[in-house]
Amino acid sequence: MNGNRFGRLFQVTTYGESHGDAMGVTVSGCPAGLELDEEDVQAELDRRKPGQSMITTSRGEPDAVSINSGIQDGYTTGTPIGMVIENKDARSGKYEPYVTAPRPSHGDFTYSTKFGTRNWGGGGRSSARETVNWVAAGAIAKKILETEDIRVKAHVNQIGEIEAPEVSFEAMLEHTEENEVRCAHPETAEQMRELIDEYQTEGDSIGGSIYFEARGVPRGLGAPRFDSFPARLGQAMMSIPATTGFEFGLGKSAREWTGSDRNEDWAFDADGNPVPEGNTHGGLQGGITTGQPIYGEATWHAPTSIPKQQKTVDWETGEEKEIQVVGRHDPVLPPRAVPVVEAMLNLTILDFMLLGGRINPDRLDDQPGEYDTEYHPSSPDNE
Amino acid sequence: MNGNRFGRLFQVTTYGESHGDAMGVTVSGCPAGLELDEEDVQAELDRRKPGQSMITTSRGEPDAVSINSGIQDGYTTGTPIGMVIENKDARSGKYEPYVTAPRPSHGDFTYSTKFGTRNWGGGGRSSARETVNWVAAGAIAKKILETEDIRVKAHVNQIGEIEAPEVSFEAMLEHTEENEVRCAHPETAEQMRELIDEYQTEGDSIGGSIYFEARGVPRGLGAPRFDSFPARLGQAMMSIPATTGFEFGLGKSAREWTGSDRNEDWAFDADGNPVPEGNTHGGLQGGITTGQPIYGEATWHAPTSIPKQQKTVDWETGEEKEIQVVGRHDPVLPPRAVPVVEAMLNLTILDFMLLGGRINPDRLDDQPGEYDTEYHPSSPDNE
Amino acid sequence: MNGNRFGRLFQVTTYGESHGDAMGVTVSGCPAGLELDEEDVQAELDRRKPGQSMITTSRGEPDAVSINSGIQDGYTTGTPIGMVIENKDARSGKYEPYVTAPRPSHGDFTYSTKFGTRNWGGGGRSSARETVNWVAAGAIAKKILETEDIRVKAHVNQIGEIEAPEVSFEAMLEHTEENEVRCAHPETAEQMRELIDEYQTEGDSIGGSIYFEARGVPRGLGAPRFDSFPARLGQAMMSIPATTGFEFGLGKSAREWTGSDRNEDWAFDADGNPVPEGNTHGGLQGGITTGQPIYGEATWHAPTSIPKQQKTVDWETGEEKEIQVVGRHDPVLPPRAVPVVEAMLNLTILDFMLLGGRINPDRLDDQPGEYDTEYHPSSPDNE
Amino acid sequence: MNGNRFGRLFQVTTYGESHGDAMGVTVSGCPAGLELDEEDVQAELDRRKPGQSMITTSRGEPDAVSINSGIQDGYTTGTPIGMVIENKDARSGKYEPYVTAPRPSHGDFTYSTKFGTRNWGGGGRSSARETVNWVAAGAIAKKILETEDIRVKAHVNQIGEIEAPEVSFEAMLEHTEENEVRCAHPETAEQMRELIDEYQTEGDSIGGSIYFEARGVPRGLGAPRFDSFPARLGQAMMSIPATTGFEFGLGKSAREWTGSDRNEDWAFDADGNPVPEGNTHGGLQGGITTGQPIYGEATWHAPTSIPKQQKTVDWETGEEKEIQVVGRHDPVLPPRAVPVVEAMLNLTILDFMLLGGRINPDRLDDQPGEYDTEYHPSSPDNE
Repeated sequence: MNGNRFGRLFQVTTYGESHGDAMGVTVSGCPAGLELDEEDVQAELDRRKPGQSMITTSRGEPDAVSINSGIQDGYTTGTPIGMVIENKDARSGKYEPYVTAPRPSHGDFTYSTKFGTRNWGGGGRSSARETVNWVAAGAIAKKILETEDIRVKAHVNQIGEIEAPEVSFEAMLEHTEENEVRCAHPETAEQMRELIDEYQTEGDSIGGSIYFEARGVPRGLGAPRFDSFPARLGQAMMSIPATTGFEFGLGKSAREWTGSDRNEDWAFDADGNPVPEGNTHGGLQGGITTGQPIYGEATWHAPTSIPKQQKTVDWETGEEKEIQVVGRHDPVLPPRAVPVVEAMLNLTILDFMLLGGRINPDRLDDQPGEYDTEYHPSSPDNE
Repeated sequence: MNGNRFGRLFQVTTYGESHGDAMGVTVSGCPAGLELDEEDVQAELDRRKPGQSMITTSRGEPDAVSINSGIQDGYTTGTPIGMVIENKDARSGKYEPYVTAPRPSHGDFTYSTKFGTRNWGGGGRSSARETVNWVAAGAIAKKILETEDIRVKAHVNQIGEIEAPEVSFEAMLEHTEENEVRCAHPETAEQMRELIDEYQTEGDSIGGSIYFEARGVPRGLGAPRFDSFPARLGQAMMSIPATTGFEFGLGKSAREWTGSDRNEDWAFDADGNPVPEGNTHGGLQGGITTGQPIYGEATWHAPTSIPKQQKTVDWETGEEKEIQVVGRHDPVLPPRAVPVVEAMLNLTILDFMLLGGRINPDRLDDQPGEYDTEYHPSSPDNE
Repeated sequence: MNGNRFGRLFQVTTYGESHGDAMGVTVSGCPAGLELDEEDVQAELDRRKPGQSMITTSRGEPDAVSINSGIQDGYTTGTPIGMVIENKDARSGKYEPYVTAPRPSHGDFTYSTKFGTRNWGGGGRSSARETVNWVAAGAIAKKILETEDIRVKAHVNQIGEIEAPEVSFEAMLEHTEENEVRCAHPETAEQMRELIDEYQTEGDSIGGSIYFEARGVPRGLGAPRFDSFPARLGQAMMSIPATTGFEFGLGKSAREWTGSDRNEDWAFDADGNPVPEGNTHGGLQGGITTGQPIYGEATWHAPTSIPKQQKTVDWETGEEKEIQVVGRHDPVLPPRAVPVVEAMLNLTILDFMLLGGRINPDRLDDQPGEYDTEYHPSSPDNE
Repeated sequence: MNGNRFGRLFQVTTYGESHGDAMGVTVSGCPAGLELDEEDVQAELDRRKPGQSMITTSRGEPDAVSINSGIQDGYTTGTPIGMVIENKDARSGKYEPYVTAPRPSHGDFTYSTKFGTRNWGGGGRSSARETVNWVAAGAIAKKILETEDIRVKAHVNQIGEIEAPEVSFEAMLEHTEENEVRCAHPETAEQMRELIDEYQTEGDSIGGSIYFEARGVPRGLGAPRFDSFPARLGQAMMSIPATTGFEFGLGKSAREWTGSDRNEDWAFDADGNPVPEGNTHGGLQGGITTGQPIYGEATWHAPTSIPKQQKTVDWETGEEKEIQVVGRHDPVLPPRAVPVVEAMLNLTILDFMLLGGRINPDRLDDQPGEYDTEYHPSSPDNE
């Protein structure tokens, strides 16, 4: 409703503006019994952190997370997990020129139109800084899914017109984090890096896309229609700032395929279960998981904050103005969005796992907390 | 949660299987005071109806809607509107071979895996017949939006490799419904028609895509982040059976654009309001409407039910089988999906209008607030 | 939001007005594999039906339910169950005088104030006729809970100042349905019946209350705080038309108890589990079920539609008027509300059972559908 | 779902345990343009704070709130407001004996049964400390409602068998906060105080109840049935720890009233509007507000944590044990629950105001709609 809640049973609620005091996220619906500490979350935040390389903003945020609740003696307790990440390196002064003179193609105007005001420092609520909350929540989801042998991975598969060749899931796991572009194909990564440098030097920016994949997701997740897996995943991906497209399976190219080419015959697998011969369907049929890998793609437009000279108007003074956006900004978004995509994918899958009854919503079965077992065996609900 | 509910304030709830007794949809959150009768809904259903031409299934459904509640003397009363559409021409016998031998790339297997059973006649709940409910609900949304001068239109912009040139909104309004392909560019429509015939003759099917556009949507709709306009619209479009991709604005091609090319300078309009010089942003900035036309695209894969010979397995008998799906099926989906896309677009916009306080949730018109007698109707029909 | 939806995972959506064409209810979230036919629902509707005796309205409704979807070969399929109950004996003419002259203490004025109009026949949407939908949905919930050995029962424990002595659960099961007052204590039932006759003869009506109890509900249901069991049950009971109070355990009298009297020591049960020595807590501690019987009470005010002479005003003509409400109305509500209370209790418990992971949301474990088992054993998600 | 969310459009999300690092609450759906600072919230927290007098726990919590987001230059921005209240005086050591030996009638056992673990210090999540979050959120709701001239007030109307006489709303405003019992009738307050002292001296505790009232709520709020005003208010009140009953209007006593006594004739008010002659209906007819004061009552059982000797069992050791709960606890709950009741009432009313379109969801004031420049603030603080 108000845009800061994601998930149906694994519920994420966020707050925070780019230059506010702190970002915050509350996770509820996390089963008890998960071993969890701040390091688990911090590791994911560090991947998303600004200032990691030349091609990301130079903002110096430690992004240190504090977990305020929901943990007892190193295990989750089933109660809400409140996390706070303080903003340490906000320098709002640079944004003053844009308070009433919106940056081209940014959210400045729409936010002010909607609310009659806005947190203007650093883009406020419209800043991608918000995604630090998502990555924090996603880190917890990831840890739970690991207990079910479900793994997700994403990498940057295109920047501008430079497109990476198809790579295996294993290659994604191995190579994505090796380079600052986060492309799992090292040679392409190098070319992408050069292209980005070029645009950055010109005071310009460039778009790109991310390929994602999930392995180990069981059959039968997703509710027919409005809560289909693609519908919920589409919402998740299109929530990420600056996305302009979402696809799964053959995606947009499916329009050029015939039924006979796209359809996959059924065969029996080694265990005698029906299995499709191929995966053009991207792991989803009728909106429900088939047990095959789920894969797809999302697109980001070029960052709108660029040093190049542009024009704007000041709605207060009525003047036309030249504008050069000289804050600390990324020249391209997908490299830093990789952890965000993985977070949203983990959150989406976990939510479906809970909704499908695959994970006990109250507590993880094989990871009892400290005070468990002895007193339960004969209680009426545990037999 | 369970997949049959759409909308946050304008709430749609559906039921029905392809070969069940009836389809049904309940609309709640419709303000009182809208003039509405069954004809308004029927007109939209007739556009979606099967059996309209050679390129659609020959199933002979009258799709006659009954409104069971929510109307008094021709006007809505603000209480839930229950609608029922009976299924008249279901012939399930043809589906018996597929009960335990899933059709390739159809939802047969995933539904049975999830539920341990399924309504197998005509694809049951996974059938696109469900969208008759969406069109019925969308017809009401459309009527309300007309009172706000908001109009939406969609047309088929690609079938296989045949792509329509860009057309104006006015052309879409004028030409889309003239041909059975529902492409607003008549020459292209003719070519598409020929291509479809070709595939149909071969017992095959083909994919395609739909372009949609909304005009008159005011500025400031959409809540930052998870309820952003693109996130909710993405969910809406990806809920439609057989969609594999969703885009808005530059969509997937945005990855090849630089920031300086994509960004739009701000200017003043005739009234002295800031207005972007262009609409590469597709009417949405920061996830919120700018007041410019909203446009985008969705992709459908080829129908999976094809007469061509394919292979499947019977999980009951353990046999491998040849299969030819000889029910009454569409050889291509977008032509019939046009009214569905429009319905989902109308439903999404109306929901945001209500959430943004642009339409009174209790009743239409300028009827004032509390402690007022004048507005009490002299007759129950609100005049 | 719009008042016609109940339940979080077991989702009920309703429509219908007292004198509209039909009442309707959609149930989604019902697991597959439940044996269900219209008779199961009809049996519960018959208990609630009007015209059963002198002390209920003489309206002659057959209340025949049609199930339009969600069933295959006698078992639920996991997809939404749409039900319709036609209104056959609506005589709206008698309500014309009240269109602009509200009946005292009825919802006529508030509905018209809110919506600027209303379905005025028979009270429209504000009529308790709506509860026919709840009883239909509750019948399904009841059948599922029976598979878990959970049983609920309610009876009328007070009418006016006539209060029934405490009765056992077994007595409630045995005697409640024996008399038209639905009081499980036969002698008291007789006195209540006489009191009701007396008021009815005078053209008056009287209030009353219902005691309810649930047995077999396992420990550990209910989420801390806003989704606590009492909070959700309170909402459920206060949704029933004409209720003015809800209590559980000691209820209102708890304010006169000391902690030392109310507190219950812990002991070990035969299986070595902690068990409280007593049940003043009503089966709920910290908002979560203890495994002890859940019990409580709800209060109904006297029906507002009475033949006795009263005064009203006509907001259209500006006149003051005498009014005698001579429709077909109950002189007391609890006797007919007993099945409604049971329905809401069943719906609430089932919802918590699903949320607590106690019942598989996709399909009932021990009641496979027709196409089950053989093909599942080695599928990746069923091991 | 998971119990830490309240509200439909004005959405409150909480976290925190009694002895955790901090309590936290996120408010989303607060319109932009409300002047708000930490002092506004602090003032309400101070009313609820522990350690205020002899009859409350001696825990020394400053309860200092930090607002982390959602404010710009002293005004709300329409984006989520994140608040944190650190726990400073937690002394968990005293709770160690209860880790596996539950305190009588407390939530220790149910929490451990549900989650297999729990935050045992100070009662963890089951502690009423959680309500500090609700009061913080309620403080914002209260400030918005003041702009609409809506005021709520509650006071303690019964402790044990000592019942206060009926008092006026004005008396409630004037006297409630004068005494530590928070009873608006000073003589009764004195008696209550003595009774509480008596029980406290004995190491015992006592129950009580709170009367609440809301003035200025406009007509027409509340959606028919499951979202009726009483249903949502009932949920709100029954969410408060240790409540066992909720009533409005005549409440439980309604069962002894005849229709002719309870019904209220309609008259015209000075402006020619229909108005009921009396308010036995408690401001609510057909579940919708009439414009008359809304009033009701809620009941609290005696605090379960008492120093008196009781018995428990240790599920780990299998031993029976004597137990004396010697933490810092209140001997009676209603005095400290008064601000909590007011908070829940404010939150409920504001939510209905937003749902009913009475308050602009995006921003307060008369700032007009679309395509308007005048309203764009000349400075970011909306002036």
